[in-house]
Amino acid sequence: MPHARNSAPLKKTEKGFRSIYAFDEGNKEMNDLLGGKGANLAEMSILKLPVPPGFTITTNVCRYYLEHKKYPKGFEADLQKHMKKLEKLIGKKFGDRENPLLVSVRSGAPVSMPGMMDTILNLGLNDATLKALLAKTGNERFCYDSYRRFVNMFGNVVLDIPHEDFEEELDAIKHHRGATVDTELTTEDLQLAVKKFKEVVRRKTGHEFPEDPEKQLLLAIHAVFNSWNNDRAITYRRIHNFSDKIGTAVNVQAMVFGNMGNTSGTGVAFTRNPSNGEKRFYGEFMINAQGEDVVAGIRTPQTLDEMKDVMPDVFADLVEVREILEKHYRDMQDIEFTIQEGKLYMLQTRSGKRTGRAAVKIAVDMVNEKLITKKEALVRIDASSLNQLLHSDIDPKAPKHVIAKGLPASPGAACGKVVFSADDAFDWVTNRKEKVILVRKETSPEDIHGMHVAEGILTSTGGATSHAAVVCRGMGKCCVAGCADIMVDAKNKRFIVGHTVVYEGDTITLNGTTGEVMLGSMPMVKAGMSEDFETVLSWADQFRKLTVRTNADTPYDAEVGRKFGAEGIGLCRTEHMFFEEARIKVVREMILSKDLEGRQRALRKLLPMQRKDFIGIFKAMNGLPVTIRLLDPPLHEFLPQKDSQLEELARDLMMDIEELKRFKDSLHEVNPMLGHRGCRLGITYPEIYEMQVQAILEAGIQASRAGIEVLPEIEVPLVGHVEELRAVRQMITTMINHYAEDITFKYKIGTMIELPRACLTADELAPEADFFSFGTNDLTQTTFGLSRDDSGKFMNEYISRNIWERDPAAGIDEHGVGKLMKICIELGRSVKPKLEIGICGEQGGDPASVQFCHKIGLDYVSCSPYRVPIARVAAAQAAIMDMKK
Amino acid sequence: MPHARNSAPLKKTEKGFRSIYAFDEGNKEMNDLLGGKGANLAEMSILKLPVPPGFTITTNVCRYYLEHKKYPKGFEADLQKHMKKLEKLIGKKFGDRENPLLVSVRSGAPVSMPGMMDTILNLGLNDATLKALLAKTGNERFCYDSYRRFVNMFGNVVLDIPHEDFEEELDAIKHHRGATVDTELTTEDLQLAVKKFKEVVRRKTGHEFPEDPEKQLLLAIHAVFNSWNNDRAITYRRIHNFSDKIGTAVNVQAMVFGNMGNTSGTGVAFTRNPSNGEKRFYGEFMINAQGEDVVAGIRTPQTLDEMKDVMPDVFADLVEVREILEKHYRDMQDIEFTIQEGKLYMLQTRSGKRTGRAAVKIAVDMVNEKLITKKEALVRIDASSLNQLLHSDIDPKAPKHVIAKGLPASPGAACGKVVFSADDAFDWVTNRKEKVILVRKETSPEDIHGMHVAEGILTSTGGATSHAAVVCRGMGKCCVAGCADIMVDAKNKRFIVGHTVVYEGDTITLNGTTGEVMLGSMPMVKAGMSEDFETVLSWADQFRKLTVRTNADTPYDAEVGRKFGAEGIGLCRTEHMFFEEARIKVVREMILSKDLEGRQRALRKLLPMQRKDFIGIFKAMNGLPVTIRLLDPPLHEFLPQKDSQLEELARDLMMDIEELKRFKDSLHEVNPMLGHRGCRLGITYPEIYEMQVQAILEAGIQASRAGIEVLPEIEVPLVGHVEELRAVRQMITTMINHYAEDITFKYKIGTMIELPRACLTADELAPEADFFSFGTNDLTQTTFGLSRDDSGKFMNEYISRNIWERDPAAGIDEHGVGKLMKICIELGRSVKPKLEIGICGEQGGDPASVQFCHKIGLDYVSCSPYRVPIARVAAAQAAIMDMKK
Repeated sequence: MPHARNSAPLKKTEKGFRSIYAFDEGNKEMNDLLGGKGANLAEMSILKLPVPPGFTITTNVCRYYLEHKKYPKGFEADLQKHMKKLEKLIGKKFGDRENPLLVSVRSGAPVSMPGMMDTILNLGLNDATLKALLAKTGNERFCYDSYRRFVNMFGNVVLDIPHEDFEEELDAIKHHRGATVDTELTTEDLQLAVKKFKEVVRRKTGHEFPEDPEKQLLLAIHAVFNSWNNDRAITYRRIHNFSDKIGTAVNVQAMVFGNMGNTSGTGVAFTRNPSNGEKRFYGEFMINAQGEDVVAGIRTPQTLDEMKDVMPDVFADLVEVREILEKHYRDMQDIEFTIQEGKLYMLQTRSGKRTGRAAVKIAVDMVNEKLITKKEALVRIDASSLNQLLHSDIDPKAPKHVIAKGLPASPGAACGKVVFSADDAFDWVTNRKEKVILVRKETSPEDIHGMHVAEGILTSTGGATSHAAVVCRGMGKCCVAGCADIMVDAKNKRFIVGHTVVYEGDTITLNGTTGEVMLGSMPMVKAGMSEDFETVLSWADQFRKLTVRTNADTPYDAEVGRKFGAEGIGLCRTEHMFFEEARIKVVREMILSKDLEGRQRALRKLLPMQRKDFIGIFKAMNGLPVTIRLLDPPLHEFLPQKDSQLEELARDLMMDIEELKRFKDSLHEVNPMLGHRGCRLGITYPEIYEMQVQAILEAGIQASRAGIEVLPEIEVPLVGHVEELRAVRQMITTMINHYAEDITFKYKIGTMIELPRACLTADELAPEADFFSFGTNDLTQTTFGLSRDDSGKFMNEYISRNIWERDPAAGIDEHGVGKLMKICIELGRSVKPKLEIGICGEQGGDPASVQFCHKIGLDYVSCSPYRVPIARVAAAQAAIMDMKK
Repeated sequence: MPHARNSAPLKKTEKGFRSIYAFDEGNKEMNDLLGGKGANLAEMSILKLPVPPGFTITTNVCRYYLEHKKYPKGFEADLQKHMKKLEKLIGKKFGDRENPLLVSVRSGAPVSMPGMMDTILNLGLNDATLKALLAKTGNERFCYDSYRRFVNMFGNVVLDIPHEDFEEELDAIKHHRGATVDTELTTEDLQLAVKKFKEVVRRKTGHEFPEDPEKQLLLAIHAVFNSWNNDRAITYRRIHNFSDKIGTAVNVQAMVFGNMGNTSGTGVAFTRNPSNGEKRFYGEFMINAQGEDVVAGIRTPQTLDEMKDVMPDVFADLVEVREILEKHYRDMQDIEFTIQEGKLYMLQTRSGKRTGRAAVKIAVDMVNEKLITKKEALVRIDASSLNQLLHSDIDPKAPKHVIAKGLPASPGAACGKVVFSADDAFDWVTNRKEKVILVRKETSPEDIHGMHVAEGILTSTGGATSHAAVVCRGMGKCCVAGCADIMVDAKNKRFIVGHTVVYEGDTITLNGTTGEVMLGSMPMVKAGMSEDFETVLSWADQFRKLTVRTNADTPYDAEVGRKFGAEGIGLCRTEHMFFEEARIKVVREMILSKDLEGRQRALRKLLPMQRKDFIGIFKAMNGLPVTIRLLDPPLHEFLPQKDSQLEELARDLMMDIEELKRFKDSLHEVNPMLGHRGCRLGITYPEIYEMQVQAILEAGIQASRAGIEVLPEIEVPLVGHVEELRAVRQMITTMINHYAEDITFKYKIGTMIELPRACLTADELAPEADFFSFGTNDLTQTTFGLSRDDSGKFMNEYISRNIWERDPAAGIDEHGVGKLMKICIELGRSVKPKLEIGICGEQGGDPASVQFCHKIGLDYVSCSPYRVPIARVAAAQAAIMDMKK
């Protein structure tokens, strides 16, 4: 589970820190210093697994370098020392003309950033060492293959030459040869590729490719450090809320080669299935390939099942490694390996990313296997990934028009309009408020921002471990990958499948669980709750301190929420009841009445409708509290927008159309968010709130008589001044006194806390309130001075320039809004120590926000029904982390 | 100077508090307990001035009564004891059928509330005591006059019968008699009036007029206490920020009679002229009159100069009293007196309300007379009344169309649209944003809310001490009173003067200094600064700690501000420069550019214009700091609103009108206040801020070369997140580096603090800011979640229901916004102890807000040029009050 981690900033005067650790000097606890890759390479070394030797340059060096634009004193000497040690260990010499040592240079940050940082393999090659390698291996094809890969990677990563420039040259050679995949190329072809690639370098940089291995190494380290601040890395950190100050480590490791022929290869694997959690070794490998070949999806890889047949010994070794690692790490591992001439080498292990479904199954299985405790199991689940388990799936009974089938790369279903670039995806979602499916030949880290906002991803190439698949599983987003049936024509914004052409803006549906691609929008059904999930939730309930309620405006929502474990309703927005077809007319009649009498006449018609709703909700929540918010939005929101609708309304109400328009104009507001709404309405039109309170009380009385246990909590919105609350409370109390004899149920009167001033004067409000409920949607908007309806115009720029880590609406902003919440709680409870305080609104289901709510001592969070299970798990995680302290 | 005073709440268990003090048991320091009137009656008794004996029921009793709806234990016995004492002292008995004691019952709160509370005279009269009085005085006319007054007052104040019901009966009798004033009525007429008045009581209440004097007394005390919470009192307290919890005292005093014939009378006087401060006895009296007759303006009173001739002995006594009081109180006094058969009695003294002009003159004179110290003089001035001295006056050279002339009741000039009721005044000002002149026959306390918002008041009856005159002087508002030339026809919303009819909505101009009423809007000239005012300001500068700057957008404003003593510019709004005719077109061209290049082209045209403005401002503020805020409002504010203007613009820019409209629509915002503005513009369109910074720097360089000392402070608006400030600061620094060699002046880069989040994260912002400047206009709007443009829809209701004491925009809301400011200062200075912090915006000139700014440790306040002197005085007052602690 990723958490924002902030290493303590490096003291400028600190000179004595250690720059480098050999693999056998570290261990997995040294993650902050060695990065995830380095720490785990060290740990695997301890476990005596077959790890090629090497060393790790610490994150200290990176932070120093990024801050001072130079290496710390003594670093280069240290580096030389470790290279010498490595040479001695391997028995080869770096840059040697007879027995040259080649190394890989790979980044590895303390936080997992797959695909974000850059890797260089085969470093140390130049024309001279190539000759030595040729002489030593006698494998010409391998040598030129390694060399062309090195020039390509180094040119791209260090010298900043677009990968496409090299790709073009290789494609030309392939074309000339009539080859479709790289393995069909001859030695001569590869030799030519090296020549062409070096020409590219010369053309693009104006310099020769650097031949000096020492220089190559320094430049590569340099490039890795700088890549910490490339746009892809920044985007990834922003999305995952990682601090920019963490920095990366660099691993320098002796090369082993998967491209030495048909007894060599490279692969990736998960110790359990990362998609469904099944306890089954799961992975892919590719013969005669190197490095990123599998992940990049350049050829279609083979499965581990196939390896059993092709390389039984290697497979047996791998299975043994799998067992050692799972037992040792007590978690599902994601590993990378290389086979050099029949011998297995481990290049990486880390906790594997998994879908929510897999997370739940693995958690339950591992607890059953007594590998981990319930607490560990809970803390390890990425609560937001549980979303997938709760998302709608395609109705299996619905007729479907499947146009293609790809790999089921990330489960769930998604439906949206087709777009063909990440930028378009971002634009359509952010500015046009459309739901989109991003369709690409393959995705790359540059596409992250578009993938983040898309409903689902469809790619035409790449396997189950391709970029698209891995990233989507991490995001809990539906993905169909490697769908070779379709031809993506991004330039003309269309894809072709058989006789069908799908254009930008057409709607398709993806089924990430089956790999099906369907035309049009498919009916969805609710996700079922698996037994494992129920188990995890029951554990969560054992540990969590926070109550979890749901936001529900209808009896149906209330039932769904309760089914998901909601322990009450934290927000019932009465205005949503006003929008129903039959009612909106009466509401409009009320608004357009010229006088109190007219309004009261219309309100009398609304009363039985509202009463009926409340009875339904009380029934659904029998025995649980129900917070009902009195009318909140400004009245003009209920009037129609279009002229034709206005005309119809005028006819209905037998009103002059011009008069109606004038009236509508008179209700217009410059800033409706800050206008005549919330309790301001209740104070100026008390008859509206009176009707609502009457409906609540009468519904309570009727439901009570029918044996329902009713616990209404009447909530006053948009209070900024104690006198507002006092005035509305007075009105409510008067109504209650009127019904006193018939009221047998308990009730509360409280207020929404959604304005900075409410937080700042909470000690004045508390004596008048039986409860507080944070409305962080509006509180965020007023604290930031930011209208959610208008922020789209600059949000893109703000996120991409890293001014905001994410849309402030997405989760509680702890520095600003969170501080106000703390002030509010402190002031409120200073005068009323047992004041019930909760939170409602979108952020109540955001795991990080739920954890913050636990930390600051809220009594409950309330969120949409489908987020209730997530909140339960997040609340448990917060409680468990609290115990650890 | 009125201050909000909050007596400590009465402890519910506190039973032993003292209910009543005789006048000779109290003194002027006992204001909180005895009220102003009671304390000063006691003090005058100590001074051996001729005060009719009596006693004061304390505010304790009032608060107890209001809270418990009954009198404290033992109160009635205490009352009887003091009545007995009074009877003994006077030698008369209350309710006696031979020698009856009559008393007045008058309220007197610890805070001055003129005309707000009610008075009953001649209490103790009934048919039996009347006979005794007749027998004793032999003055039938006096007896019936007293009786009809008593029935009227008691009926109105205690029994809640409208005054008009009695007035009608009296008018009928007058009509029958052919009398125009009350002195023309005969004994029989007055006898009839008593009869008719008692019939009114019977008709209206269903009961006989209460004959029992004991009951009369208790009911009267009761009524005074209840009147504390009448609407007029509440309104007055709201306007003056007095707590509702203070309560009033009640004075019961033996009657003396000004209506015993032509050697009797009643009057009011000021020991110095309250209008201009001249050291000259100033007042009016009325022969054969009682109580409120003078103030109510029922007849035209005589001046004190006339008294010298009519009643020389009384006048001599009065002059002696005046000298004793001024020496004793060391302040100008407002006194009330009654002459009973040639003998002077003092009924009240208090510090007199005065105009700003008078306050200044009296302060300077009294310091010169060595009566008070400079500090005392300063603290005593109501800083907001100084407004008058600075307000525009009518240009004496302008041709004027004088239609009428009344009494110059409160100085200054005012111009506005005529309205005829206080409600209309409130409505027009609050909702229609009009400036109005309230025209009334006479005003009454019910009109306070309308008077408060009107530009000026015109009345057709009443003198220089009438309600309208007194209240207007207190408010520093222009008033022409007793303008008998005009006939006010409020029913038809018009007034008639000769052949001219002025209707509601017509514009008139008042000159409160001359009493002239003019048709239309007159040209105004700036008020001059008197020598006395300069003296007061120079004292203020000796004591104040706060620097006072001015808000100025033009070199002219800057000069005016500097003339008034501004020590820099606290806010220069660059956008105001954009609205000038010649520039707005270029601004629009910039906004409508399709690309960066187009915007830059337009910005290049704007650059020299902005540069020129800044040079002018730097010249005007030579040697003083100038805070320049970068562009703040959303771009759509610069586009024309009307279709015709849009069409013209399209032609000018050779743009398709439909395209222009679409563009305009695309800029539309739901909540522009919370939208794409401030630094959000600077971050998305950096070229705009770059141009502005370039203009500032080039202007600084040019002005410096011309020998001007330039001190620019570049201000980034609407910062909510440190990264915003960091990004803009980075841009500014880059510009500065570009000009580094030519910049010889000091500069600062800072931020406006106008969002709650900026306050809450001030410790993050401070390292990036050389200064903070509170923009409390926007900070108030976001803290309250209140749009100033939309609040009119409910403001009326909120103020009248006492939910808000005043429009939150009018001054710093200490509980909410003020708390945020304190948090900001504390956090900001925790990381940068010497951080310069100021405030700009309207509230920087509100005296209470200035005092708050002093208290929380700001470095400066900045306000509009005409409020600079007020701020200087308010700042001095804050500093002096600080010393006292």
